[in-house]
Amino acid sequence: MSFARLQEHIDKLQNPTVVGLDPALSHIPDEMLEKYYKEYGETLEAASLAVTEFNIGLIDALCDIVPAVKPQSAYYEALGPFGAFSLQKTCEYAKKKGMYVILDGKRNDIGSTAAAYSAAYLGVTIVKSKEYLPYEADALTVNAYLGSDGIKPFIENAVKYDKAIFALVKTSNPSAGELQDRLMGYGDGPSFPVASQARLNRTDEPSPCPEPSPCLVSLYCAVGDLMEEIAKDTIDKYGYTCVGAVVGATYPEEAEFLRKRLKNTFFLVPGYGAQGGSAADAAKSFDSNKKGAIVNSSRAIIAAWKKGGSDYKTAAREEVLKMREELRKVLKY
Amino acid sequence: MSFARLQEHIDKLQNPTVVGLDPALSHIPDEMLEKYYKEYGETLEAASLAVTEFNIGLIDALCDIVPAVKPQSAYYEALGPFGAFSLQKTCEYAKKKGMYVILDGKRNDIGSTAAAYSAAYLGVTIVKSKEYLPYEADALTVNAYLGSDGIKPFIENAVKYDKAIFALVKTSNPSAGELQDRLMGYGDGPSFPVASQARLNRTDEPSPCPEPSPCLVSLYCAVGDLMEEIAKDTIDKYGYTCVGAVVGATYPEEAEFLRKRLKNTFFLVPGYGAQGGSAADAAKSFDSNKKGAIVNSSRAIIAAWKKGGSDYKTAAREEVLKMREELRKVLKY
Repeated sequence: MSFARLQEHIDKLQNPTVVGLDPALSHIPDEMLEKYYKEYGETLEAASLAVTEFNIGLIDALCDIVPAVKPQSAYYEALGPFGAFSLQKTCEYAKKKGMYVILDGKRNDIGSTAAAYSAAYLGVTIVKSKEYLPYEADALTVNAYLGSDGIKPFIENAVKYDKAIFALVKTSNPSAGELQDRLMGYGDGPSFPVASQARLNRTDEPSPCPEPSPCLVSLYCAVGDLMEEIAKDTIDKYGYTCVGAVVGATYPEEAEFLRKRLKNTFFLVPGYGAQGGSAADAAKSFDSNKKGAIVNSSRAIIAAWKKGGSDYKTAAREEVLKMREELRKVLKY
Repeated sequence: MSFARLQEHIDKLQNPTVVGLDPALSHIPDEMLEKYYKEYGETLEAASLAVTEFNIGLIDALCDIVPAVKPQSAYYEALGPFGAFSLQKTCEYAKKKGMYVILDGKRNDIGSTAAAYSAAYLGVTIVKSKEYLPYEADALTVNAYLGSDGIKPFIENAVKYDKAIFALVKTSNPSAGELQDRLMGYGDGPSFPVASQARLNRTDEPSPCPEPSPCLVSLYCAVGDLMEEIAKDTIDKYGYTCVGAVVGATYPEEAEFLRKRLKNTFFLVPGYGAQGGSAADAAKSFDSNKKGAIVNSSRAIIAAWKKGGSDYKTAAREEVLKMREELRKVLKY
């Protein structure tokens, strides 16, 4: 249930990594692109077919040593509807090869619409008497800004179909802290009159200022708390709920704090490698049993061939083995 | 620039409304679906073709009285890749009929990935020597949880191609306040030691508790402030930047507060009608010149035919005229 399948696959391969399939066209070898341009012209269709072939090659080269892939939806959407076919085929092929598929879409909306996103990636769409899987993923990244009613439709399908989600908690980018590090009232939070506004919080009466330190938490911590709370009935045999958290390797102090606080939350760790996070930084997201997290690397692996010397599959495999060794070393596997 | 095109179209039609194209299959008349099931089987392809025909009919029926449409991406994604073609054709047809297209995708990611989303909906994708518009929208909804570096790639294309975005500020759903209403330090915010954590905010030194009322703002207010600040160089002739705000009609007090505070921000107002917001509630998002906002209605219009009596186009048109009258009355057009 939940993340158990992923944890077991990680354990089997002794490799807590996920390869990000972010196929910017500049990451694809020219001869692969040219082959399709020759047949279909310089079109989005040709580019999408090249992306599919590129991904299939990477999956073939990595599926015996990497437990999971993470297609980044944006790069497929930038290719228009043909890109959607490429995304669908990429997910399908990775599943066929036994990989766990984390679709990185950071979706979010009000309940009724979140249910449609949930059907698209974790559930089924019903067409009269038939059921279809629009895109076949095991997990989806989501954004929790709308609160629990925008998350619950994903939890429902996660429970029903043995899937999972990762909510953005502390992201890996430089401006992550602008909102996420801001400190706020703990729990339901106190309510204050703000400037000329009579009441900002409609349900609580204004109350006095809280004690400073222990009652204030950062926004990212509040999001993490809320996610663990609403998913608490879905804890699996390894102790994790079906709602994971995205926690950037670029913020190791925060990761250490969150790892201690969110005992039932599985972490997806971006920011390793190209974005600047080290293996030691990424290790902060693992629990004392070396479980409960998976580390992503995208560009550094899929575009490793650009450094020269190897074809793209060999270069990616070499880079994955290097990353695996670095993580095994700091985690003392 | 920015929202000027939209404001001028609203002024011309004297109708500040946008029709949400959220084509759940249950909103489409059976005979339309059956026509495609007969030809293509009970498939996602058939359903997607029915959605396209349904939308084209709505656009034909409404384009002389409604300035804008808002396709909700989730419903197209739930149909798989064929749904992406339906979304593309819907946007293209609405543009051809002179409507302003607000794509509701609530996209968000780190800078490099946000650039790919920005290319997909507001910009172009380059395939060797050719440029393509993957999906042709005038504006896109986005989620600002990742801070300014995830928003800037959208602003760049908005400026370059006369487009715009709407960031989620105060959403219309019941659990919106769980995070959005929480109060936090104003501006850069103070930093506190939290529990056993030495420093949550990595850049500022811990400082004492701030004065309670005027220095604390809600998260939604902080997001609104940040968006107005980072887009301040893009103000158009009507006084609005290219970064609008989503402000739900279901929270009229908050809308009134935000309208006063965010003087340079154009509002997209969901939550009218089916979700419970009244015309008077929606009116709180307009400035004193009756400008600066557009009100969305989806289900109540596109599924109006289910109440019986008219075909879906006539029913939608009647519902739009009713909504227009209600808004004109409270806005005193």
